[in-house]
Amino acid sequence: MLTLYFAPDTCSLASHIALEHTGAEYAAVRVDFSKSEQRSPEYLRINPKGRVPTLITERGRLTETPAILMFICQTFPEAGLAPLEDAFELARMNEFMSYLCSTVHVAHAHRMRGYRWVDDPAAIAAMQKKVPQTVAGCFELIERQFFVGPWVMGERYTVCDMYLFTLAQWLEADGVDPARFPKVADHRERMSRHPVVSRIVASELSA
Amino acid sequence: MLTLYFAPDTCSLASHIALEHTGAEYAAVRVDFSKSEQRSPEYLRINPKGRVPTLITERGRLTETPAILMFICQTFPEAGLAPLEDAFELARMNEFMSYLCSTVHVAHAHRMRGYRWVDDPAAIAAMQKKVPQTVAGCFELIERQFFVGPWVMGERYTVCDMYLFTLAQWLEADGVDPARFPKVADHRERMSRHPVVSRIVASELSA
Repeated sequence: MLTLYFAPDTCSLASHIALEHTGAEYAAVRVDFSKSEQRSPEYLRINPKGRVPTLITERGRLTETPAILMFICQTFPEAGLAPLEDAFELARMNEFMSYLCSTVHVAHAHRMRGYRWVDDPAAIAAMQKKVPQTVAGCFELIERQFFVGPWVMGERYTVCDMYLFTLAQWLEADGVDPARFPKVADHRERMSRHPVVSRIVASELSA
Repeated sequence: MLTLYFAPDTCSLASHIALEHTGAEYAAVRVDFSKSEQRSPEYLRINPKGRVPTLITERGRLTETPAILMFICQTFPEAGLAPLEDAFELARMNEFMSYLCSTVHVAHAHRMRGYRWVDDPAAIAAMQKKVPQTVAGCFELIERQFFVGPWVMGERYTVCDMYLFTLAQWLEADGVDPARFPKVADHRERMSRHPVVSRIVASELSA
């Protein structure tokens, strides 16, 4: 059985939603960030990066959202969460996920995790000041260039939708008005009403 | 035919090496960063992100190194550059590539591209000061946890090797002594002597 280590209000939500979509049995274990459990010796043995998500499979540990999402898609092809039969479409999916993890999530992380890249408190404050601009720049590119509609990749609902929904949750806190991005805002609203998505969001909040 | 847009001394080297490994015909077009060609209207029509690599295929444009590398692996399976037949091994490959693009490359980028995340010159200088520490932290994790040997993923030579080699080129400039990471340093040395790798490195420098 698969075990997902997650924390509420982090990018592990995307993997959590994807797992729930497969209908497979899995365990979801909360890592309590308020107690810094992600840096405890116990958790570092599970994931030496001290981050979530971590997926424990019968063959070993997996980390990194794009890798976990693709693994879920390939392990449960009947769930139809990725265009596995088409290398170009799959590359478009990987392209979108790579942009989210390497650019969008990183822009966001400069608000609350600036200490990763700088020690000086004044520099951390300077970073935070630019977050609304950098995050908005990312979502502008998504809105105008990469979001096909009605779903991220077009007619097909994929793990890109779960991953975008997860990161779009943070817009207001990052100082960005979602109304600037009508397609992304509408997508977020539709996703939040999806029974699988709303069930997982609720379960994480009560975990 | 495929066309790769690249710039010397950037992460596009990984895709360039992978393409050369396939034996396929392709065109390699240099984007001149010294003239800011990556932000020219012409190039922004090719890739609205203003970055390299960009791969033009007969079905459209692809960006983001992990997506391009996987596309090359799937389009030329006979080159054997990825464990395509095994979802777990492929997830390990994706995990490694995700870590490189979202964490290692980002740590490095705070040295020369700090303006992406902050405007204040003093903050940019503060960021640069921490780069040796953050980049070394990434390579320590790779050395101790993720590098299997003799290649990144073990016995099989994959696109992970080309991607790691590309980022390991920057260690000295980032203020990190490669000797601290014997496996990574030995890997870089072996990669640099590979005929395909050395041919592409030389061709980029003379482009």
